[in-house]
Amino acid sequence: MRMYDLIMKKRNGGTLTDEEINFMIDGYTKEEIPDYQMSAMMMAIYFQGMNEKETLALTMAMTNSGDTLDLGMIEGIKVDKHSTGGVGDKTSLALTPMVASLGVTVAKMSGRGLGHTGGTIDKLESFKGFSTEISEEKFIDNVKNIGIAIMGQTADLAPADKKLYALRDVTATVDNMSLIASSIMSKKLAAGADAIVLDVKTGSGAFMKNEKDAFSLAHEMVKIGNGAGRKTVAIVSDMDQPLGNAVGNALEVREAIDTLKGEGPKDFEELCVTLGSYMLVAAKRAESVDEARQKLVECINDGSALAKLAEFVEAQGGDKSYVYDTDKLPTASIIEEIESPCDGYVSRIICDEIGICSLILGGGRETKDSVIDLSVGFVLKKKVGDKVNKGDSLATIYANDREKLNIAKERFLKAYTISDKKVEKARLIKGVITE
Amino acid sequence: MRMYDLIMKKRNGGTLTDEEINFMIDGYTKEEIPDYQMSAMMMAIYFQGMNEKETLALTMAMTNSGDTLDLGMIEGIKVDKHSTGGVGDKTSLALTPMVASLGVTVAKMSGRGLGHTGGTIDKLESFKGFSTEISEEKFIDNVKNIGIAIMGQTADLAPADKKLYALRDVTATVDNMSLIASSIMSKKLAAGADAIVLDVKTGSGAFMKNEKDAFSLAHEMVKIGNGAGRKTVAIVSDMDQPLGNAVGNALEVREAIDTLKGEGPKDFEELCVTLGSYMLVAAKRAESVDEARQKLVECINDGSALAKLAEFVEAQGGDKSYVYDTDKLPTASIIEEIESPCDGYVSRIICDEIGICSLILGGGRETKDSVIDLSVGFVLKKKVGDKVNKGDSLATIYANDREKLNIAKERFLKAYTISDKKVEKARLIKGVITE
Repeated sequence: MRMYDLIMKKRNGGTLTDEEINFMIDGYTKEEIPDYQMSAMMMAIYFQGMNEKETLALTMAMTNSGDTLDLGMIEGIKVDKHSTGGVGDKTSLALTPMVASLGVTVAKMSGRGLGHTGGTIDKLESFKGFSTEISEEKFIDNVKNIGIAIMGQTADLAPADKKLYALRDVTATVDNMSLIASSIMSKKLAAGADAIVLDVKTGSGAFMKNEKDAFSLAHEMVKIGNGAGRKTVAIVSDMDQPLGNAVGNALEVREAIDTLKGEGPKDFEELCVTLGSYMLVAAKRAESVDEARQKLVECINDGSALAKLAEFVEAQGGDKSYVYDTDKLPTASIIEEIESPCDGYVSRIICDEIGICSLILGGGRETKDSVIDLSVGFVLKKKVGDKVNKGDSLATIYANDREKLNIAKERFLKAYTISDKKVEKARLIKGVITE
Repeated sequence: MRMYDLIMKKRNGGTLTDEEINFMIDGYTKEEIPDYQMSAMMMAIYFQGMNEKETLALTMAMTNSGDTLDLGMIEGIKVDKHSTGGVGDKTSLALTPMVASLGVTVAKMSGRGLGHTGGTIDKLESFKGFSTEISEEKFIDNVKNIGIAIMGQTADLAPADKKLYALRDVTATVDNMSLIASSIMSKKLAAGADAIVLDVKTGSGAFMKNEKDAFSLAHEMVKIGNGAGRKTVAIVSDMDQPLGNAVGNALEVREAIDTLKGEGPKDFEELCVTLGSYMLVAAKRAESVDEARQKLVECINDGSALAKLAEFVEAQGGDKSYVYDTDKLPTASIIEEIESPCDGYVSRIICDEIGICSLILGGGRETKDSVIDLSVGFVLKKKVGDKVNKGDSLATIYANDREKLNIAKERFLKAYTISDKKVEKARLIKGVITE
C-alpha cells in the first residue's frame, strides 16, 4: 500500500477503506508517512469529504494511535461531557458536582490548553491548595468514594490527532466537519467513558459561527460516538453572547457556586440542567429527561450539589471553606463599572471579542508558558435584549493593571451594540441530537 | 505575507496576485516555505485551478528562480522546439538539421532524463566520438558557424520547478493543466529562445491520453509563451501509436538519417515538415507556412539537411561518416521478426507498452544511473490500419539478451490488437494552436 495511491484515490472522489485509513494514520504516527503527503491528503479530504464509515475509521485509528484509558475498575456507567468551547463556559464546574451528587461518576483527565480564560483545571486552582497532580490510585479511590476526580493528563491520548491537528492548523485544512468531529471524538473515545454528552456551541463566540455548521458537527460526532459503541447525545447551544454573566477564572468559579446555591444566572442554570439530564439518563440514574431535570433542580435546592463540590475540592487538597465563603476566592485590585454610552437596548454582543478582552486582562493563555491571572475578568450586567439607560453599568471589570484595563474596556465597549429597537433574547438551547 | 493565508485564499477559490505567487515561489526555493504547506497549496490549485494571469505569474516566478540563458550574442531570431514526449519521437534528430540548413539557429541545453529510450543527447552518442561536453565558447562558436549546438545542462534552469515537480510527483498533484504548462514553459523561457514551437502529443503513448486535454495543455502553454513575450505555436500530434517505425536509440538515428535522405516513414517526415514550417515562419526565414513547407521538402531533396547533420556531428567530435554509412551505428547481436499470430487488420497499438518493451530490452533509463544500450529496440513493420496475414512480421526486434528479448516480445504482442474489420489510419496532426 502506498500513501500516493491513497491521496490519488481521495483526490478523485474515492472512498478509503478501513485498512487504508489505518495504514495512513499508523504510518503518519510512526513518521513513515511525511507531512507533505498528509497535508495533500487533508486538502483532498477538504474538497472531497469523507463518508460516515470513513470518518468513524479515521476516528478509531486516531483513538488507537496511543494510550486508551480503561475505566473498567469503576462501577457503573461512566459518562463524559465535552464542550466545543466558548466564552464564560464554566459548565463543568457546576454540572460535575450536580450529576455526581445524583450518582453519576465523573473520572476526567484534563489538559490546560490555550484560550480566553483557563481550562477547568485552572479555574479549580482558584481554591487554595487544589491540585490535579494526584496519583492514579488516589484518582480511582476518589472516583469510587466521592464520584468525582480530575487529574492532569499523563497518558498519551490520541497522539495521531495531536500531530495531525498541528499540521492542519498550518495548512488551512481545519474546516472540514469530518476532520473536526474525528479530532474531538478520538480524544473522547480514548478517555474511556461509556457514554458521552456533547455541548456544541454556535455563534460569534464559538468555533462554529452558524447554526447549520453546529448541527452538522453535532450529527457527525453523535454518529461517530454511537458507531464506536458509546451512547452519545449532543446539545447545540447558543454562544452568540457569553454564557451566564461571569468571564474570567475565579469569577466563573463564584458564578458556578452561586448557581449551585440556586442564585446563578438562569441561562447558565438551564444549560447545566439540560446537559445534566441527558447525562443522568445515559447513566441510567433517571428513566426520562423530565425525571432527570426534576432531580437536578432538587439537588440544587437541597444543597447536595454544593456539598458535593465541597467534598470534591477537599479530596484534591483544596480549601473547601471557599465554597461557602466565595469572598475568599482570588480578587482583583481594580474593580470598575463599564457604563453604557447611551440609552437603548443591547442588540448584539460580539462574543469572541469579550473573550479577547479577558485575555488582554491576563485571564487566559496566549502561549503554553503564559501565567494566568485567576482574579481578572468581567461580570456582565446587561445582555442581548436588555434595556439600558446611559450611564448604566454594562459590566463590572476586574483588573490588576490600569493600562490593560483601559485597553480591555475600550475594546469591550466596541463589542456591544446598543440600538433603539428592542431585540428578542436569543434561544439558549438550539436542539438535541441523538443520532 | 503568510503562506497559510495564501493556501486559505486559493482553497476558497480566490485569485493569487503576482506578488503573492512571487512570495510563494521565492520562499519555497529558499526553503523558507515547507513542503507540507506547498503540497496543500498544490492540492488546492488542483481543485480550484488558476486563471491565465496566475499561470503566467507562476511560470515567470519559476523561470526567474535560477539562471536564465542570454542568447543575445547570437544573431537572428532563436527558435526552440519542445515535445511533450512519446514513443519513437526522434523529431529533434531530423528537424534540427533541416531548419538549420535553412538558416534557423538552434542553441540547445539538454539533460538526459528518464524514459523508454534515451534523450536526444543519448541518441546522438550513437555517433562515435560525439560529445555535448563542450565549453561555452565552443557552443557559441558552433551556433554562429554551423547554426546548431547542443550542450549538456550546466546552468541551473528553473530550480523552483524542479523542486516543485518532485513534490507534486509524490502528492498526486501533477494532473493540472496550469501546473503542467507552467512547469514546461518555465524551463523553456529560462532557456532563452525568442520563439517556441511546441509539439503536444496525445494518445496512449503520451502524457495527455485524450485530445481534449492535449488541446487544453497546448492552449495553456501558448498563452504563457505569448504572455511572456515569446512567439509561441503548438502543434497537437498523434501518439496513439509510435511515431515513425523505429523505437530505440541507434535505430531512431538511422530512421532520422533515412528521413533526411527522403527515405523515411511518411508520418515522421510530415511531422518534421509541419513543425519545421512554423519554426521557419517564427524565425522569419519564410513568409508563410506553405513557403516554409516547400523549403523544407527541398532541403531534403537537395541533400542540404543531411549535409548539415554531418557538419553538426563533426563539430561536436562525432564521426560524420556514420551519416553516410548507417551500418556503422551500434547494432544488436540478436535480430528477429515478431510474427503476427493471425490474419486481420492492426486496429490498435497500446503505444506506451511499446515504450516499456524498449525499456525492458535496455534501451532506456529506469534510474538516473542506468546505462543505456543504444543498439536495442524495434522497427515496426505494421501500424494501425495495416492489413496483416498470419506469420507476417509485425516488427523487427533488436536485442542483446535472449531472456530480455523473450519478455519484451511477449509483451509487444499483447500491445497489438488485430481484428477482422479494417480500421482508419489515425490522423497525425490534430491541430495547430497559435493563441
